[in-house]
Amino acid sequence: MIQTKGYAAQSPESDLAPWQFERRTPGPHDVQISIAYCGVCHTDLHQIRNHWFEGIFPMVPGHEIVGHITAVGSHVKKFKVGDRAGVGVMVDSCQHCEDCNNGQEQFCQVSPVQTYNNKGIDGQPTYGGYSDTIVVKEDFVYTISEKLDLAAVAPLLCAGITTYSPLRRWGVRKGHKLAVVGLGGLGHMAVKFGVAFGAEVTVLSTSPNKEAAAKTLGAHHFVVSKDAQQMAAAYKSFDFIIDTVANDHDINPYLALLKTNGVYINVGMPAKPWEVSSFTLAVGNKVVAGSGAGGLPETQEMLDFCATHNIVSDIELIDMKNIHAAYERMEKGDVRYRFVIDMATL
Amino acid sequence: MIQTKGYAAQSPESDLAPWQFERRTPGPHDVQISIAYCGVCHTDLHQIRNHWFEGIFPMVPGHEIVGHITAVGSHVKKFKVGDRAGVGVMVDSCQHCEDCNNGQEQFCQVSPVQTYNNKGIDGQPTYGGYSDTIVVKEDFVYTISEKLDLAAVAPLLCAGITTYSPLRRWGVRKGHKLAVVGLGGLGHMAVKFGVAFGAEVTVLSTSPNKEAAAKTLGAHHFVVSKDAQQMAAAYKSFDFIIDTVANDHDINPYLALLKTNGVYINVGMPAKPWEVSSFTLAVGNKVVAGSGAGGLPETQEMLDFCATHNIVSDIELIDMKNIHAAYERMEKGDVRYRFVIDMATL
Repeated sequence: MIQTKGYAAQSPESDLAPWQFERRTPGPHDVQISIAYCGVCHTDLHQIRNHWFEGIFPMVPGHEIVGHITAVGSHVKKFKVGDRAGVGVMVDSCQHCEDCNNGQEQFCQVSPVQTYNNKGIDGQPTYGGYSDTIVVKEDFVYTISEKLDLAAVAPLLCAGITTYSPLRRWGVRKGHKLAVVGLGGLGHMAVKFGVAFGAEVTVLSTSPNKEAAAKTLGAHHFVVSKDAQQMAAAYKSFDFIIDTVANDHDINPYLALLKTNGVYINVGMPAKPWEVSSFTLAVGNKVVAGSGAGGLPETQEMLDFCATHNIVSDIELIDMKNIHAAYERMEKGDVRYRFVIDMATL
Repeated sequence: MIQTKGYAAQSPESDLAPWQFERRTPGPHDVQISIAYCGVCHTDLHQIRNHWFEGIFPMVPGHEIVGHITAVGSHVKKFKVGDRAGVGVMVDSCQHCEDCNNGQEQFCQVSPVQTYNNKGIDGQPTYGGYSDTIVVKEDFVYTISEKLDLAAVAPLLCAGITTYSPLRRWGVRKGHKLAVVGLGGLGHMAVKFGVAFGAEVTVLSTSPNKEAAAKTLGAHHFVVSKDAQQMAAAYKSFDFIIDTVANDHDINPYLALLKTNGVYINVGMPAKPWEVSSFTLAVGNKVVAGSGAGGLPETQEMLDFCATHNIVSDIELIDMKNIHAAYERMEKGDVRYRFVIDMATL
């Protein structure tokens, strides 16, 4: 077994604090990664606080993991010691069901094994990236170009793929008008991908003071979503809307901004169900689409696309001990645009 | 002006009764049609009763109109006297906006002119197909093959195109599993089109006694949607679901039956908004899609497809004077599958 240092919540009521635990010795198909950086996702906070469901404690969060290979199993083909490597939201799946065969392992019909707060196929709890090392089946580990800033790659493993996947699946490209609702970790990646795919990108935000930042990221237009006049001017003007806002909100004002055949994509995953009328969707053949992360081939494709187009997340690097201050700022939307933990500070 | 006989509601409280009114003399781009048959759509009842919005009275309902050309304007190219002709849910549009240019005149940005209970571009009320003759701009009149039973073609103009359009747009074809929810006017057409497109079709109905009828229409499977065990067996098994039920109902049990990347299409248009959770759609990249009728080119395409594949509606021909008894039976779902008025009985 491998002695591992991490930061864990011992219960939903307790703060994250240093914790020692063991990981398995790499098997023939496993690699061991020395974690250099781990991104801070809103999900981490939801899970250590049991916001969604009963968690498995102690819990080591973190599913935006990058580092270097320190050991490889005898059958490993893709990696050698010293290589860069990344791990995202899942570390295993059945690899045999229809979804796995289609490269959508995140929806594995047996059960995708989440990177933390889940149990592996061996029945053991999974522990995430707020730690110094991790052992993962090679198939669930991504290669990362040497060209990119490694710390800024970390958020691509969740925020990146979560926005890349639906924009690709729906074929967003040159000639399309894309609206991005919300300019946080997910939103700023959606802007970067939308621009890279050639779309004309508009950021919709409740905060007028985000306009300059949106334009810096490459957005062509900015709409203050609390301004009725600006919203009226945007009526029926978008081919696609990607809504990245996690707080509960009415999506109907956004549906009104879609052109005929327009598609509203939600990746913010607010807790409260939406109310949507059949008439709203029928008039204009409109679509409401969900999207959850991405599968193994598409996540690698996204990382390769980022290497080609020099895309990374805009990040703020923090020390491990400052995680709670980071959570507080994250809840207020006070981060441009993703906190990443420097694991050298663990 | 042309003296016209029809059946009209004088107010939302009054029954339909004989009424004489005038239609315009055909202009250079108009055709005049002697109406042979008119289908009875649930919408007719909603509109004469002001269920959705304040109507324009007197109201002559009917937007599933077939008959023969009796006069053509000087610039008419597509028709000559004696030809079969059909009129659906709209009789005009701006013909210049983006939606009209894309062949989706039903979403015209100026305003599609509904066949009845609407005002034309000339400001005059439109009167529908419960009448002996109608004058319509040639572009909004469809050609109908001599091969098909004319009375049974009438429902294609609304029930037909409303189901054909989304199944075509979403590319339903061989290899796909399609569920049709509800087996009424729309549902039975969805089964016929789904089968004609090569899909494996399952009918979902609350009534176990509809199984034989579903199979007769060509459905391969039947699920009683009130039977928890049958619904559990159908979990995650459909690529597409087309929901044709007009009564309010929870759509979440149907969303659970979609495979990954599955699409739920609503054409039943229940009045009460749905409650849908972001998580329901995110897990499996699911889609909720609306669809409203079809444009001019697609409606003609549908009619031509029906001629090639010998598809018509299953109908029950009624006399004009029996319209209220037909409405009562329609509300109970007691019709296989569409009432059509024989206008010779007017």
